[in-house]
Order: sequence, then C-alpha cells, then structure tokens
Amino acid sequence: MHSARGEKHWIIPDAYIPEISSGSLLSHESVCVLNVSSEEALINFTIYFEDRDPIEDILVVVAPRRTKHIRTSSLNKEGTPIPVGVPYAIEVRSDIPIIVQYSRLDSTQAENALMSVVAYPLR
Amino acid sequence: MHSARGEKHWIIPDAYIPEISSGSLLSHESVCVLNVSSEEALINFTIYFEDRDPIEDILVVVAPRRTKHIRTSSLNKEGTPIPVGVPYAIEVRSDIPIIVQYSRLDSTQAENALMSVVAYPLR
Amino acid sequence: MHSARGEKHWIIPDAYIPEISSGSLLSHESVCVLNVSSEEALINFTIYFEDRDPIEDILVVVAPRRTKHIRTSSLNKEGTPIPVGVPYAIEVRSDIPIIVQYSRLDSTQAENALMSVVAYPLR
Amino acid sequence: MHSARGEKHWIIPDAYIPEISSGSLLSHESVCVLNVSSEEALINFTIYFEDRDPIEDILVVVAPRRTKHIRTSSLNKEGTPIPVGVPYAIEVRSDIPIIVQYSRLDSTQAENALMSVVAYPLR
Repeated sequence: MHSARGEKHWIIPDAYIPEISSGSLLSHESVCVLNVSSEEALINFTIYFEDRDPIEDILVVVAPRRTKHIRTSSLNKEGTPIPVGVPYAIEVRSDIPIIVQYSRLDSTQAENALMSVVAYPLR
Repeated sequence: MHSARGEKHWIIPDAYIPEISSGSLLSHESVCVLNVSSEEALINFTIYFEDRDPIEDILVVVAPRRTKHIRTSSLNKEGTPIPVGVPYAIEVRSDIPIIVQYSRLDSTQAENALMSVVAYPLR
Repeated sequence: MHSARGEKHWIIPDAYIPEISSGSLLSHESVCVLNVSSEEALINFTIYFEDRDPIEDILVVVAPRRTKHIRTSSLNKEGTPIPVGVPYAIEVRSDIPIIVQYSRLDSTQAENALMSVVAYPLR
Repeated sequence: MHSARGEKHWIIPDAYIPEISSGSLLSHESVCVLNVSSEEALINFTIYFEDRDPIEDILVVVAPRRTKHIRTSSLNKEGTPIPVGVPYAIEVRSDIPIIVQYSRLDSTQAENALMSVVAYPLR
C-alpha cells in the first residue's frame, strides 16, 4: 500500500487556451496530476473568469499510482467547454493529496512556445 | 460566503517589458491574480528599479470570485507608466489573501517566447 | 565538511520526451540535481505513466559538491529506456537532501522552446 | 526604514550559458535579486560543476530598495568567468534576506526561447 502525498488544494492563476495553432503542434494547456497512492483520486475543478461567475464542479478521476496530463480543452460542464482566447484561472481540489503542475504550449506563431509552473499549494 | 485563500504579499524579482514586438502577438507581461473570496481585493503594487527609487502605491481592484490578468503596461502612477526595456521587480500587496502568477510573452523576434513563475509568497 | 541541504523527496508531474527534433538542438529533458554536501547522494527514480504500472528503482549517483544534469533519455531499467512521445511523471528520492529542478527543451518545430520548474518537494 | 524580506540562501540547480546566439538577442542568463530593505545586501555566489570543484566567493552588492538583474556572464573569480556550454548550478547566499529568480534566454536558434524559475529557498 502506497500512501497519498502532496496537497489536496492547488491554484493556477494564469490559464489561457490560445485560439490559434500553426505548424505541426496544437496550442494547448495541460493540468498534470500525479497520484502516488494506491487509491483513486477524485479531482474537482473550479474555473474562474475576469467577467463572469465561476464554473464549478468539473470532475476528473486519476487512477492509483498513475499520472494524468489533463488537457483543459477536454474539461467541460454539462457539455460546455472552457472558452478559448479568454484569461481564466484554475482551482484544483482533490479528495486525497496529489501533486499538480501546469504547462502551456502556444503555437499561435509558427514555432512553439512553452511555459510551465508547479501549481500553488494551499494548506 | 467564500473565504480568502493564499497570501497577502508576493514578490516577482524578474520583470521586464520588451521594447519590440514582431509577428502577430504583442510582447507583454501579465501579473495574474486569483481572488477566490466573496470580498473585493485591493492590490497595491511597488515597482523597484536598478538605478532609481521605487514607484509606490499603484492600486488595482480584483472583484470577488474573479481572476484578473493585469498587463504591466497598464500600470501607472499618476499617468506615468513603467518604462519599457528596463529591468525591474514587482512587489504585490493585498488587503486579503490572493494567489499571484507572473508570465511574460516576448515576441522581440518573429516567433513568441513564453516564461512563467508563481510569484514568491512572503509570510 | 559541508552538510547536505534541501529535501530527500521531489516530484515532477509533467514529464515528456518529445519524439521529434529539428534545427541544431536535440529535444530533451533534464533532471538537474545539486548536491552541496561532502557526501555522495544516491538518487532513486520512479517513473509514473497514464496507462501502465510505474517503473521503479532507477539509480543514479551524484558526487559530493557536484551538480548533475541528468538527461531523462539516459535513464533506463535493465536496458529499457523511458518511452518517447508519452506523458509521464517523475518521483525523485535521495538518501541525503538535494535540490532538484526540471527543464525541457522542445525542438519539434524548427526553433527551440524551453520550460523549467523547480520540482515540488515533499517533506 | 524598510526591513529585509525573503531568505538568505537560494539554490538554482539548472544553470547553463548557451554558446551560440543568433537573431537580434544575445543568449544569456540572469540571476534577478530584489532587496526590499533600506540596507545594502552583500551576495556571495558559489558555482558548482559536474566534473570539477566549485568556484566560491564571487561577491556582488545589491543597493537598498533596488533590484539587480545579474548576468551570469558578468560573474568572475579573479578575472576567470563561468565557462559557456557547460552544465552548472548556482548557490546564492546573502547577509540579509532577499528574493531570487533565475531566467534564461536561449537564442541558439534564430528565434528566442525563455525559461524562468523562482530559485529554491533554503531555510
């Protein structure tokens, strides 16, 4: 049995899905979760905007002893996805401790640009 | 009612507004703030330089349950903006806890480059 | 005698070896370790995937008062390397405290892209 | 009087001065220090390598209430600079608390790539 490690609550203030892709790679963001434990982790996303109310309770499961690199374009609330080309922020809560990193690949212009941060843990 | 989370005091040592943009994207920096609380957050920026006194008390409001991705080029003290092409540093203080991330897009050369860090929290 | 500093346990949720390189630089990732102590550090890697069991107990030694920038493509378990083009995550354990940073250079498209994070320390 | 904030000891495991520049920007790294206090900060750098002994006691002063974005190519020990094209790591010590961020611009290929991390604080 492997016990859960990390934190249950993580914040990513700078999220943005680029509208445009060019070249061979698609612009995208990933919320990368590691669950080192022998139990399933149930993840709950809240999406915050600049000018409208948050979208709450988008749920994702991460299997035991697995990572999951979650494309933000795959997140949706009753079929409605996160809008592209809009600044937003992400709150990640989990029922057990996990570790969260956020990365963005922007291929708006022909060559790709990358950025990445470990999310900010709330304790 | 949602309570405030994060820290009231954050530091970004490496700030720089590129002088040049090329291609389809404008060079810029953003200070990305998330206010998860049900109260307004009043943000106070101090801008430090290498060779002159700091600019103090630039104020920005972030609404309850909202993110704000603040372009540093929009910050100004009585109409005077932060100079471009000059190394500087940013201190962010807030009356309630928030979470702060800093990102820069540099399109000095034709294809864009990205960097991002979660700001350093002072406790 | 210099004593060990840092932490013994670090996590990198977002790892990925790009399949393609173009231009003059090879796509690669590095796990960069600093051992400030006067003793050798014995590093133990666990590699987590999205859809299969982890690879455990890949061992690397970092000499006293040295850094080592470990290419993930050099890591292997009984001759089997980490697969390219697959999302994965890295757990780094050490017998003495060290400091760990992770960087990726992606040259899938002709110009290179860089990202870097300090790994997340577990205490 | 402004008191010092941050930490006195910071680590950057992944440092590297690219050998090549192309396009309009020079490849370089910066160690960006913020001294929010009313006192001068005396910074002491140790440079660690993969295959030789560290270079110790490179000294830099950061003035009160100022930032300093220190190009690593400007650091030298009795006239000997840090070699280019070699993986290394940086230890930053200060007599008073400061905040440290590290950024690299790589223009080996024609378009620039950027990466940045807040250094890891040792407490």
